[in-house]
Amino acid sequence: MSELKGAAIFAQSGGPTAVINASAAGVITEALKADAITHVYGSAHGVRGMLDDVIYDMSKEDARELELLTTTPSSALGSARYKLKNFEDDDTDYVKLLSLFRKYNIRYMFFNGGNDSMDTCSKVSRYLKSVDYECRVFGVPKTIDNDLWGTDHCPGYGSAAKYIVTSCMEIALDAKVYDTGMVIVIEIMGRNAGWLTAASALASYKGLGPDLIYLPELPFDVDKFLGEVDSTYKAHGNVIVAVSEGLRDANGVYVPEMNYTNLAQDSFGHTQLGGAASVLGNLVKQSMKVKVRPIEFSLLQRCAAHCASKTDVDEAFLAGQLAVKHALDGKSGYMVGFERAPGADYVMNTTLLDVNEVANKEKTVPRDWINEAGNGMKQQFIDYALPLIQGESRIATEGGLPRFAKLKKIRA
Amino acid sequence: MSELKGAAIFAQSGGPTAVINASAAGVITEALKADAITHVYGSAHGVRGMLDDVIYDMSKEDARELELLTTTPSSALGSARYKLKNFEDDDTDYVKLLSLFRKYNIRYMFFNGGNDSMDTCSKVSRYLKSVDYECRVFGVPKTIDNDLWGTDHCPGYGSAAKYIVTSCMEIALDAKVYDTGMVIVIEIMGRNAGWLTAASALASYKGLGPDLIYLPELPFDVDKFLGEVDSTYKAHGNVIVAVSEGLRDANGVYVPEMNYTNLAQDSFGHTQLGGAASVLGNLVKQSMKVKVRPIEFSLLQRCAAHCASKTDVDEAFLAGQLAVKHALDGKSGYMVGFERAPGADYVMNTTLLDVNEVANKEKTVPRDWINEAGNGMKQQFIDYALPLIQGESRIATEGGLPRFAKLKKIRA
Repeated sequence: MSELKGAAIFAQSGGPTAVINASAAGVITEALKADAITHVYGSAHGVRGMLDDVIYDMSKEDARELELLTTTPSSALGSARYKLKNFEDDDTDYVKLLSLFRKYNIRYMFFNGGNDSMDTCSKVSRYLKSVDYECRVFGVPKTIDNDLWGTDHCPGYGSAAKYIVTSCMEIALDAKVYDTGMVIVIEIMGRNAGWLTAASALASYKGLGPDLIYLPELPFDVDKFLGEVDSTYKAHGNVIVAVSEGLRDANGVYVPEMNYTNLAQDSFGHTQLGGAASVLGNLVKQSMKVKVRPIEFSLLQRCAAHCASKTDVDEAFLAGQLAVKHALDGKSGYMVGFERAPGADYVMNTTLLDVNEVANKEKTVPRDWINEAGNGMKQQFIDYALPLIQGESRIATEGGLPRFAKLKKIRA
Repeated sequence: MSELKGAAIFAQSGGPTAVINASAAGVITEALKADAITHVYGSAHGVRGMLDDVIYDMSKEDARELELLTTTPSSALGSARYKLKNFEDDDTDYVKLLSLFRKYNIRYMFFNGGNDSMDTCSKVSRYLKSVDYECRVFGVPKTIDNDLWGTDHCPGYGSAAKYIVTSCMEIALDAKVYDTGMVIVIEIMGRNAGWLTAASALASYKGLGPDLIYLPELPFDVDKFLGEVDSTYKAHGNVIVAVSEGLRDANGVYVPEMNYTNLAQDSFGHTQLGGAASVLGNLVKQSMKVKVRPIEFSLLQRCAAHCASKTDVDEAFLAGQLAVKHALDGKSGYMVGFERAPGADYVMNTTLLDVNEVANKEKTVPRDWINEAGNGMKQQFIDYALPLIQGESRIATEGGLPRFAKLKKIRA
């Protein structure tokens, strides 16, 4: 393949994770080393920066700060949720993009995100081909949801999972200190895929986790749920339940949207409502008359770099690095994926996946990794997830406080 | 002082912390070494174990597990919230206690907890004296609330503070990834004392924390709050607010109990209600029409051993150890306290405080450590709190998961 000389641009998109900046570090440091790459640019807020010409010169950043990106959570360049139209229908954005690519002579684009980002890669790649503009487009996977098709797992998942497992174990210890009963309902992210909620099973597996786990992959039955919480409470005196934010009934109605006529009312006659944990917690409280505490892991599950998986951080960096290497080798239109080698030991190989395919598919938790009762995980899941949370990534500290990367973000 | 030979009993009381077990390790290992102490017992669920004769023989525990206690959160022996009556009014419990003390020949009692625990120490100590039963009673301080009188700070506070600071910084990074505005309202524990909420200022001090901080020490004015959030939003485009769970207005009404007629209603006409963050979040949403995310640190702020302060862990262990040493030296009726040496360097000396005094006093955040506007902390607080979160305590891990102590709890 002939050498393609020109600038590279990197963008981050979708929800932040604990390791998306590790991929950024992988892309940027590798691109800065490459002779064929004349300039390394960062786009502010995903594709938005490319449309509005808000472009940073990454060569102006301190090497130390780029290194700190490896343990800095969230998206250092900013993120966006912006879906490009089909260029066949409306090419307004694409014309802007092309003009920016020409202005900076961008010949390499690295886009870090989930399904939507791969959709962007796919569209941009096809558009640039259609106008005969030579540019190698590469996807770098990222999502705590772990729902990207074709790859064994996604960078971001292992760290979110490690945070969830660790927190569940600590909560389990806390919940058991009093000799009075309690029901804890923990709400975990994942609208369509239950990978993160399932991760709480790694804590259960150590005897310090949820007694019951409900994923969005199965239709949620409130009466069955209440019965299971009740019988577990009767058996153990306290219950920890993990629920996905995306639980919905057989008709596709999400838990917070279900209209319970018997929802608990406070002293002013106001009905209490909130997310899945809050709604289900209220129902438990009302039907069982016990102490209930709903807990939401909220944003922390996706940005807790202080509890990240070393395996995840290393793989995120590698995915970024390899995207650059493959692009330099002449490849385009791919996302770096992971492929687990067979055998008991964890050996993870990388692979290349067609961004067009990744863009339009979704990977959920297989039914046969969930137990028959639909309220817990089987050993297959434990074997799958456990290697992904191995190793402790240590964030840099300064004076007892985390020291996260501070980019100068100098406009190109 | 003549040597007092007999058994020692240890109990944990009140809310769990990340380091209460470190104090347990300090007491137990020191007591096991002492010649004068014939047996080392643990009481299940605070004073309850002493009343119901649920007593564990700590000498039967593995040394390795006792060591693991140092990095195991929550109360390994179980906790309780049980207030002894005055023995002058009703000595039922005290008679039971005395009979248990005689049965096991208990001559040393170590009680680990907050104000209420010091109250227990005080009452038990005075009762035993009144019936001429020789026993040395010692309090070991513990509370994330940091509200114990007479001591510079309390074990448990530094670790909870470190978790809060770290999480605030990570949330701040996460909150700023999109270029669309958002208001995040973080609810932090502390019903009467704002020490924990104030700790979020350590994150602000690094430019990655709450823009506004409200402590329960000052009467809370909802209109002033809404005005401050609004003007900060207008200036920065997004706002992070830290609020104490204990915020109340000038009449002493807690935020969740305020009857707002204009509270946001959901699509079913249900009024949304919850804790302080949820209620205030709704008010912000309604008055400013912006995206709002309430976050509660909930139980994690008190049990996150994975993010504990090394300084705190070490001091918690020391407090337990010193209680035993002082009791062996003949002292009784004291709590181990901390006294900061003057000067820029952090030098912490220990002191002994009369449990009778500690039992009945409370320490809140001084007004002049809070800024004039009542929505942030001054440098005096930063100087006070920063040394307490220094150093990272590493939890033991096994196969990528936390490895917490597992006590056998063999009945005596």
